[in-house]
Formats: sequence, structure tokens, C-alpha cells
Amino acid sequence: MNTMLLSESQIKKLITMRDVIEIVDRTFVDLGEGKTINPTKLNLNLGDSEPTNLPYKASLNAMPAYIAWQNMAGQKWAGGFGLGRREIGRPFINALIMLVEPNYGDFLAVMDGAWITNMRTGAQTAVILRYLLKEQKDITVGLYGAGVQGRTQTMALTSIFNVKKLYVYDPVPAAAERFKAEMAPLVQGEIIIAKTPKEAAKADAVITVTPATQAFLKGEWLEKGTVYFAMGSYQECDDEAILGASKLICDHVAQCLHRGNLKSLAERGQITADSVYCTVSELAAGLKKVGNVKEEKLLVVPIGMGCLDVAVAGIAYRKAFSLGLGESFSFDN
Amino acid sequence: MNTMLLSESQIKKLITMRDVIEIVDRTFVDLGEGKTINPTKLNLNLGDSEPTNLPYKASLNAMPAYIAWQNMAGQKWAGGFGLGRREIGRPFINALIMLVEPNYGDFLAVMDGAWITNMRTGAQTAVILRYLLKEQKDITVGLYGAGVQGRTQTMALTSIFNVKKLYVYDPVPAAAERFKAEMAPLVQGEIIIAKTPKEAAKADAVITVTPATQAFLKGEWLEKGTVYFAMGSYQECDDEAILGASKLICDHVAQCLHRGNLKSLAERGQITADSVYCTVSELAAGLKKVGNVKEEKLLVVPIGMGCLDVAVAGIAYRKAFSLGLGESFSFDN
Repeated sequence: MNTMLLSESQIKKLITMRDVIEIVDRTFVDLGEGKTINPTKLNLNLGDSEPTNLPYKASLNAMPAYIAWQNMAGQKWAGGFGLGRREIGRPFINALIMLVEPNYGDFLAVMDGAWITNMRTGAQTAVILRYLLKEQKDITVGLYGAGVQGRTQTMALTSIFNVKKLYVYDPVPAAAERFKAEMAPLVQGEIIIAKTPKEAAKADAVITVTPATQAFLKGEWLEKGTVYFAMGSYQECDDEAILGASKLICDHVAQCLHRGNLKSLAERGQITADSVYCTVSELAAGLKKVGNVKEEKLLVVPIGMGCLDVAVAGIAYRKAFSLGLGESFSFDN
Repeated sequence: MNTMLLSESQIKKLITMRDVIEIVDRTFVDLGEGKTINPTKLNLNLGDSEPTNLPYKASLNAMPAYIAWQNMAGQKWAGGFGLGRREIGRPFINALIMLVEPNYGDFLAVMDGAWITNMRTGAQTAVILRYLLKEQKDITVGLYGAGVQGRTQTMALTSIFNVKKLYVYDPVPAAAERFKAEMAPLVQGEIIIAKTPKEAAKADAVITVTPATQAFLKGEWLEKGTVYFAMGSYQECDDEAILGASKLICDHVAQCLHRGNLKSLAERGQITADSVYCTVSELAAGLKKVGNVKEEKLLVVPIGMGCLDVAVAGIAYRKAFSLGLGESFSFDN
């Protein structure tokens, strides 16, 4: 049985941000309708959190899923490596995605997962914002983190919305400058480099996509009508940014309480599963409604679900198969 | 970054049962000393257990681990496919193993995992039996299930012990006959095909390696001095075979309570974590002792740990690397 192998550069040619947006949307709906299966991801701690004896500031998440609308099982195995990869100038994330035909158990494909991770992380914000803002097209954005994920956030938002102003903050000014130069062709309006974190906090959508481990975003800066997307794996905002929200929306409740911005408050018992107003997929499937966003201070925590990665990988595989692309290897030979 | 690809036939040439036995032993010791990391495996249910909407009688286990003595992270992703693969005559299990360098996050290898699964499942029984029987070399074996795993059990036991009598029972008599013909050259003594399940139950080591979902082994058949290895993923023995044991030894307590022969009693609260006398790795590291096995009715439940698979895969990778074997693919290119 041949297993298809796909590299990052091959996947990039097969899948556009528009594709990823529609795949993410369909997968959220499918999950809300109880068809897609996405168990809580499993972490292998290589020293990025307590308790550990290991020095690597790294961990790997096993994120299996079954995608009903593709009849496909798969897994992303994704690591964040905060030491070695940083030192040699490689991206923080490295990942592989495997696809399995669920009846015959054939491994259909093994492919790069880093690029898909970044693309779907951008897409999910834009898709969720579309669920919330409905017909509103013109938006302002406050973006914290001018890295790879900041770029895919921008790619996705500008694919759906007319971004009139995009404030970007990064503690490294040169990174913000590079971001502005690269992203200017995509952004319909203006990119403004924020000199302080506070400057970027007044916007329709505020997005933190950083590897920060200490709070830099203050809840007191967030105004009614702002949707705050807390995307980081660690701690980016203070308690008020969380506790001051009028509604909390998560992608996967168990995951969100054990990792990222909610973790600390969850450990102290100040945030529980009952604090979550609804999940993203309940919104997607129309099972829950959020009223007038302008009257809310919404907090959205999409910590990241494997089903999105597997669904994107599934479409990349199908396209590659149709086009006769990709190398192959027979593992069971 | 090149990732090595290894097929089943390549791995078979690199690793012998003797290698696997020593790797399994060392990894058990390492785990007992708290160096190796082996989180509870994560199941993706494709219809092999409740609750499910899926028809596949299949599931996939994500089994990541960090192997301290190799300084290697890895994961086995292993599925059992009870419908489609059966129909087309392929083995029940299909698996891939991925290896990751923990500091730089490079995916070092992706390789077949089915053969390694079968080999280490055989090896672990023999290694555990060596911990228990110490200097005793002559043994009798009662083996239920004349499939692939029955063969690797036999390969491993005959590598360490002098197997004087091996009783084999399989509900398909032709399967038992084929087993006898193939395994006769390995077994030092005699292979006896048991006509009823009861005939195979009187032995130093009784091993059930079947996909059975209904109890066929009765606890009343097991005598003092018998070590019973309950290896299946579902239900193979009656309650008495479990509750009548003088000591229960597990490889991974959480896993053993959620799957396999202990599951049903654990769900009814009749077996808990407190029922476990010790883990295999505690035995391996000398942290716990079992006295005179002849005075005990020991029940050993090694449901299977990813660390064993990853450790074997790590050695296969190193050997292949030294020999310049294996194809490669650059996923992040």
C-alpha cells in the first residue's frame, strides 16, 4: 500500500487561504452537528511546563480526529520547540499530519503540518469573526505578534473582511516593520505599528498570537464591542481580560482549560467548564446565538483543534491525488 | 531536513527479537526510574466501542513517549481495524512510528509500526516473565490465539526460556495447525494443540492474545504458580481470572483500567488503581518485589506502552542511519 508524501512547498501550491477558510467553516459546522470526532489533544511534555526533568522548553501535541464530511481519519502531531529551533532560526512549530482510511486502515498520506497549522489558525479567527459579525464587512484589527501566525491571521481576515485599520504590536520593532512591508499589499486599509501594547487594543477584533508567557494585554483596555481572540499557548493577558468578558467562547472546552490563557484561572477555580457560554462549533451549527456584538465584550479562545488540520490535509491529499502529485512510500512493504 | 522512511521489510532486517528483548528490558527499567515519559495513550474511536455513530469496528491509539536512554521523542499511531482489513485478509493492526529529536524538533524518521508492535508485544511478556521467574529457565506455556501475536510471543519466550511444552488453543483448528508447523523449529520442547480452552490453562505462563470480545478463559482453571498474561484489547477472561489473582501487575495503570480485560470490572468499581500491586517498570527497576511465584496466582496486564515501540524504532533508526539505509523525504522543504 503506497502512502503519499507531501512537503510544505507542495501543499502550498495545492491549498489557498480561501480553501482553508471554507474547510474550517465546514468542519466547525460538522463538529457542532456531532459528526466530526475530536478528542482532547494529548501532550508530551519535553520541558515546556511543570513537572519536568527535561531541558528543551518543548512539547508535542497528538491531535487525532475523524472528519465526517471527508470520511477520513487523521492526526496532526505538532511540536513547539522553544530552545534549539529558536537558536538556529527555524520556526517554533514543527508538525506532521497523517491520514488514514477508516475502514481498511491504510495510511493514505504523511505530510508537513506546520504550514497547515499556521493557515488554519489564521482561518479559524476569520471564520469565527464571520459567525459573530454576520453581515459586517468593514473591520479594524489589533494584532499582537508580528510572526508567522500574525501573517496568516492577516491573510485570512483580509480574505473575508475589508480591514480598514490594522494595528500591529511586537516587542521587536523590526519585526513589526517587516510585517507591515510584507502585509501591506493584502490589507485593504492601513497598517499602523503600535508603539505600546495599549495602542493596538481598540479595535473590532483584538488578536494575541504570541509565545508570551507573561501577561502584556490588560483587560481594562478592551472596550465593549471588541472581540478578543486569545490565541497563545501560554499567558498573554491579565485576569481582567478574561473575567471581564461578557461571554466566553471556546473551540474545545477541555483543551482550553488546560492550556493557554485560561489555564491559570482554571487552576485557581475561577474559570470552569460552566464559564463557557458556547463552543465555536455550536455557533457554527446555529445551536447557540450571540446577540449584538456591539453590546458585548466577547472573549474567544480557539486553542486549536486537530480536526481542522486533518480536514485541510484531507483536501490537500485529494487534490494531489487527482493531479498525480506527491511522492509515495510503502511502509508496510 | 531529511526524514528517514523505513518499511517493514527494512526494519525486519535491522532488528532481531534478541534486540527487542533487551530494548524492552532497558526501557522498563528507565520508566521505573522515572526517566522515560509515557503519557496515557489517546484513543480515536472509529466504531469499535460505545458511544459511536461509526460502522468501522476500528480505533486508533496515539502513543507518544520520550525515551531518556536514547534522548529521543516519538509516537506510535496504531490502529486496529476489525472490518475492512479482515475482509481483504490483511492484519488487524496497522501502525506508523515517528521519531523526533527533542531539541531541534526535527522529524528524524517515519516508519512502519505494525511489525514493531507485534515484536515488542512478544518481548514484553518474556521480559516480565524473566523478572518474575528469575533463574528458572524451563517453562510450560498455555497460549490462546494462534495469530501473528501468538507467534511473536513464542519467538520471545523461546529466546529467553527453554519452553518444554507449549499448549496452543485457537477456535480455528487450521490456524493452530499452521502455528504448530511454523513454530516447531523455535520451540525447544513440544507444541500441543489444545482441543478445548481448558486444556491450555495448566502452565507456568498462560497468555491470551486474541481479539475476543467475550470471556473464554475461566479463572477456575488457573492454578497457583501460574502467571496469567491478559494481553487482549477486549474481554478474554471471566471475572474470577481477575478477582482470583493474588497480585495484579500492570504496565500502565490508567491504560489498563480503561481498556482490555480489566475494563469491565473497573467500570463496575470492582477493580481500581488500588487493586494494582505494582507496575512492570517498578519490578524492572527493583522498586517492588514479588516473592515466590509458585505461591502466587499472578495476573499481569500489559496493555501496551508507546515507549516500547518508540525505543525499538529509535534503535532501528540508528542502525539504519549507520548503515546508510532507508529512503528519505523532506517534509519541511
